[in-house]
Amino acid sequence: MLVVMQAQATEEQVRAVCQKIEALGYRAHSMPGAQRTAIGITGNKAEVESGSLEEMPGVQEVIRVTKPYKLVSRDTKPDNTVIKFPNSSASIGGPGLAIIAGPCGIESRDQAFTIAERVARAGAQFFRGGAYKPRTSPYSFQGLGEEGLKIMAEVRDRFGLLIVTEAVDYESLELVDQYADVIQIGARNMQNFSLLKRAGRARKPVLLKRGISAMLEEFLMAAEYIMSEGNYNVVLCERGVRTFADHTRNTLDLSIVPAVQRLSHLPIIVDPSHGTGKRNKVTPLSRAAVAVGADGLIVEVHHDPDRALSDGMQSLYPDQFDALMVQVRQIAAVLGRSIPKGAEAATLATTSTQSTS
Amino acid sequence: MLVVMQAQATEEQVRAVCQKIEALGYRAHSMPGAQRTAIGITGNKAEVESGSLEEMPGVQEVIRVTKPYKLVSRDTKPDNTVIKFPNSSASIGGPGLAIIAGPCGIESRDQAFTIAERVARAGAQFFRGGAYKPRTSPYSFQGLGEEGLKIMAEVRDRFGLLIVTEAVDYESLELVDQYADVIQIGARNMQNFSLLKRAGRARKPVLLKRGISAMLEEFLMAAEYIMSEGNYNVVLCERGVRTFADHTRNTLDLSIVPAVQRLSHLPIIVDPSHGTGKRNKVTPLSRAAVAVGADGLIVEVHHDPDRALSDGMQSLYPDQFDALMVQVRQIAAVLGRSIPKGAEAATLATTSTQSTS
Amino acid sequence: MLVVMQAQATEEQVRAVCQKIEALGYRAHSMPGAQRTAIGITGNKAEVESGSLEEMPGVQEVIRVTKPYKLVSRDTKPDNTVIKFPNSSASIGGPGLAIIAGPCGIESRDQAFTIAERVARAGAQFFRGGAYKPRTSPYSFQGLGEEGLKIMAEVRDRFGLLIVTEAVDYESLELVDQYADVIQIGARNMQNFSLLKRAGRARKPVLLKRGISAMLEEFLMAAEYIMSEGNYNVVLCERGVRTFADHTRNTLDLSIVPAVQRLSHLPIIVDPSHGTGKRNKVTPLSRAAVAVGADGLIVEVHHDPDRALSDGMQSLYPDQFDALMVQVRQIAAVLGRSIPKGAEAATLATTSTQSTS
Amino acid sequence: MLVVMQAQATEEQVRAVCQKIEALGYRAHSMPGAQRTAIGITGNKAEVESGSLEEMPGVQEVIRVTKPYKLVSRDTKPDNTVIKFPNSSASIGGPGLAIIAGPCGIESRDQAFTIAERVARAGAQFFRGGAYKPRTSPYSFQGLGEEGLKIMAEVRDRFGLLIVTEAVDYESLELVDQYADVIQIGARNMQNFSLLKRAGRARKPVLLKRGISAMLEEFLMAAEYIMSEGNYNVVLCERGVRTFADHTRNTLDLSIVPAVQRLSHLPIIVDPSHGTGKRNKVTPLSRAAVAVGADGLIVEVHHDPDRALSDGMQSLYPDQFDALMVQVRQIAAVLGRSIPKGAEAATLATTSTQSTS
Repeated sequence: MLVVMQAQATEEQVRAVCQKIEALGYRAHSMPGAQRTAIGITGNKAEVESGSLEEMPGVQEVIRVTKPYKLVSRDTKPDNTVIKFPNSSASIGGPGLAIIAGPCGIESRDQAFTIAERVARAGAQFFRGGAYKPRTSPYSFQGLGEEGLKIMAEVRDRFGLLIVTEAVDYESLELVDQYADVIQIGARNMQNFSLLKRAGRARKPVLLKRGISAMLEEFLMAAEYIMSEGNYNVVLCERGVRTFADHTRNTLDLSIVPAVQRLSHLPIIVDPSHGTGKRNKVTPLSRAAVAVGADGLIVEVHHDPDRALSDGMQSLYPDQFDALMVQVRQIAAVLGRSIPKGAEAATLATTSTQSTS
Repeated sequence: MLVVMQAQATEEQVRAVCQKIEALGYRAHSMPGAQRTAIGITGNKAEVESGSLEEMPGVQEVIRVTKPYKLVSRDTKPDNTVIKFPNSSASIGGPGLAIIAGPCGIESRDQAFTIAERVARAGAQFFRGGAYKPRTSPYSFQGLGEEGLKIMAEVRDRFGLLIVTEAVDYESLELVDQYADVIQIGARNMQNFSLLKRAGRARKPVLLKRGISAMLEEFLMAAEYIMSEGNYNVVLCERGVRTFADHTRNTLDLSIVPAVQRLSHLPIIVDPSHGTGKRNKVTPLSRAAVAVGADGLIVEVHHDPDRALSDGMQSLYPDQFDALMVQVRQIAAVLGRSIPKGAEAATLATTSTQSTS
Repeated sequence: MLVVMQAQATEEQVRAVCQKIEALGYRAHSMPGAQRTAIGITGNKAEVESGSLEEMPGVQEVIRVTKPYKLVSRDTKPDNTVIKFPNSSASIGGPGLAIIAGPCGIESRDQAFTIAERVARAGAQFFRGGAYKPRTSPYSFQGLGEEGLKIMAEVRDRFGLLIVTEAVDYESLELVDQYADVIQIGARNMQNFSLLKRAGRARKPVLLKRGISAMLEEFLMAAEYIMSEGNYNVVLCERGVRTFADHTRNTLDLSIVPAVQRLSHLPIIVDPSHGTGKRNKVTPLSRAAVAVGADGLIVEVHHDPDRALSDGMQSLYPDQFDALMVQVRQIAAVLGRSIPKGAEAATLATTSTQSTS
Repeated sequence: MLVVMQAQATEEQVRAVCQKIEALGYRAHSMPGAQRTAIGITGNKAEVESGSLEEMPGVQEVIRVTKPYKLVSRDTKPDNTVIKFPNSSASIGGPGLAIIAGPCGIESRDQAFTIAERVARAGAQFFRGGAYKPRTSPYSFQGLGEEGLKIMAEVRDRFGLLIVTEAVDYESLELVDQYADVIQIGARNMQNFSLLKRAGRARKPVLLKRGISAMLEEFLMAAEYIMSEGNYNVVLCERGVRTFADHTRNTLDLSIVPAVQRLSHLPIIVDPSHGTGKRNKVTPLSRAAVAVGADGLIVEVHHDPDRALSDGMQSLYPDQFDALMVQVRQIAAVLGRSIPKGAEAATLATTSTQSTS
């Protein structure tokens, strides 16, 4: 904390502020300057809740300094967190990029399998798909629920893809923890602290999406909530923020990728589908996300987006996803990173055989 | 929905779009203009998920038109909703303004009683106080939980104030529904749809705060979630939105008050404490909120804000609250509205007697 | 300036930063804390351009502290600036509120006179009207130019209203300085520093509108540009900022009124017409602006808004303006302020006589 | 324009709106839907200024449809604009990327030459440097003026670099038009329409920076202002927009690149220096800008940023710029684009000889 005094503040006013700070149990460091005096505060363990300082005579402004995150911070853990998965070569946060693809929502077994086969073949190692959909309207399609989770478990068995899907409350989180490989917490729940704490007690890694107007510090503190309960496997995800701009549904803030990497050891990936909301922007922004240094992508793909029950207008066609993978593979190489072969090498041969049987 | 064609779009392209719309089961209305053709879509029950239209040759833009709210809309219920309370003369949404005041968080019985007495005496009919605090940091004070609810129930008995307090998950909502008079859903949970639906099944009215970057439509749709489960007693609350401006913690958007009143029959109140985050802005913005036509205020008051465990810097001193009430009472009168005498007239005499007993 | 070190920063790194600061000619104040060390910088006359500090090993963040405004600041001039006008009882910044009203653009002598008569009768002391219109499209109506200024000069002679009108470049500023009583600098030109400096050399007071995304500091620094050239008669004007919200054209930020009043001695008024962009929001937000403590209003009024050449949809009808004046007069009284009788008392009698002669 | 009626609107109200539209000289197209009726308006040449429609009984909302740009639009000119320069192989908008580099401000001949040599050697074809600096504070360094322009002209002669520099008013624009190769219009002047029109009468191409909160349409309309005066050589430049996010100075909105390319034939480049405001973010965001498909970069480079008179903290060191060029060259190749050899191949050999003479 730093208290900035007004230019005309008297010495007595400065002294009164210092005494107040000491009375609150902290140490005051007075720094007289050419124009005005600033007073540093140290010795505070937690955040100083001292609005009254701002109201004291002679005070111009109170500036908060200390950053409150602990477990998410590189101060605590200098090395990058790499999240690994049992019985899989996939990882998130290592030199290989994590590619997560699939439909917005799981609509049927057929739909899921059709898309899964295509994204696995193109090189994705993770399959995304919503079973619980947080929709703006209560009258919109809300997802298949546990039925959707079961379909995704079949997708894993069939195509060797790891499953990423969203949980929206305790009940769904318990089921997602059971069926899936990564528990997604959506942007609307980024500050649903009860849910974050519950996710912190889950066994599976958590993919935490940035809230639609979350500042960097809030985003990291949301991850801190999860980690503070014991789950250290958190993946951050930029998915666009809300601004005045109307040429995309959200404004994808790629600068948060290097900003997170400077402050935290956690991996961060990018969602260009929600980040733009328009199919024709997904490919260029996916390239940009890899070029900026993200640890992966989460992309919506649908074979028949016109008939998708949600978010069809931002889903790539499978052919577009194929083309995207070719480009991002090359860009990753420029940064000394790679995109692993994906599920297909490990399992598609086998599963192809199975499918003909 | 409206599809706007490019100026150079051919007649065939226009026809193809119309056919696509019909194939999706809707009706297409072609409107040739001087510069370009626009195509209206009607016949859709729910939102058209037809991103593919935007990708068709010759299409410039697709514009969404239909507003999806039903129960919140004045179309459905032209008269203002007035929320009444059993065994109390207080109401929300009628000609009298609802004044809700109290500390950010309940810290102790003493603290709650000290503040409650002052706000009741000044004319508040409702007492606010958090028992479950959603805090950005997991290491900050999180509230007293059920203990806090019990203290507030005592406040009601002692001072005749109705209790407004926040629920953050199923468990706390059940307890709040039991102990309090109004269930608050906080800004961070405005799109926690599971919680909204649970609140829709509660018996008590719901005070729904606008999310920190919620658009009007999303705000109304969140209320729709509650109402769609059968709870029609919803009070909306503007509490500031996040913008680039840094002279206040949030930017209080008072224009949403007349905007809501035009579209919806639900009452809307204003929270100038969170809306500004600075004590010295609370009084002027409270005056402005009443002047703009809000149905009430929710204001943080603390007798010792330096030692408050949360949000001390935006709490009014009781004396400031007294002065505020004098001003807003006069401004309300200019708009033909009033501020009822509050709890004090009804019960303070009695309770004073009790307190001396 | 304050340099915040990382938690794990070594003593050598702290020392290196201090040495760098001293090498740049400033003084370094090291403040070791429980978690990390912060280093205050004093002795800088102007802003420290020392991005390299942020790049030094062990540095977490550099925080700017010193506020750069001088002439606009209450530090320099504690008393409110009150702007007076020769041969008129009107003023801006005193206990009386300044009411400025008129059409968006001057379209004809008839239009101007029709509207001027109505607003003068309702109590406005100032007449607004654009002769030079900054329009988003080069193909929109751009104003009558000097012809418009001449019409407004006639309005002054006829109705005793002081004239407020916008200048958009050197040439128009010279003419406005000659014909009008207050030179308006529009939101789009708030950081057109050449124009600000030119306005600082004009003889007439300047009405400076806040840029559509200007922070408080930038707004005050724009006024500083004008004052630094010798023109101390600056009126600030809040006119809405751009946010994500779409229920109004801009989001009117009334909290900037008390924020400016805390930091600066300059008067600040509010423009609810541009601030909302919708006629049905102008009256409620005008009431709110007066209630928040603004020193005046600038409101668009048009007798035939359907046929207005610009901004018709945000103009009040004269009858609506009459009703507005009744309400704001009462609200002003609650704050111990008043709205002078306006031009009418002084001159309408006379001019009525003239008009019949 | 589209008028959306309320659900409960009567047939008479619909008819009245249609009659009003016809009375205004347009055609009305009524589209009855399941829930409500929408009325399309066609036949309008310019924007319909018909706010009164919104106020008519039964009207819910009025939605603007027609896009007002003409000359900037791909509707008018389907092929990309490629800007060429006499006596130079450099171009902007063709398959080769335009790389513009140099200091924020020109401080001295030595400084300019030192930096120019490094950026030319690394592959830049254009040299940037401010002679007229729009600064937030009137007390900050405002640039060397014509002296700075002369230094840049020498840089062109010496290193074969084309000169890009900002004009802030008529006077400086005239001089920039005379000395430089590209006239830059800064973000703060994006809606300084007088300056835009003046630039439209200049002989040199114009680099138009996006305003700090400009919407896509406003950005294109600013270009339309320039083109409407006859200068068709306009380069757009994304340089970050203002949002709530505070981890960068501005939020770089890379999605506007494909959005512009869809609507307009004009080239668009990216400024990652102002777009992030932090040196450590410039390289990742430069890579992202090339990956998203931008037509070039404008980057600040300074050999001694600690002592830079402006914006030192966002300037790359020459070595960092060298490394950046290696990476973006490779990423450009992934998109089938290239970065020309720059000034060095053409002239550095010669100039090296000269410099030893």
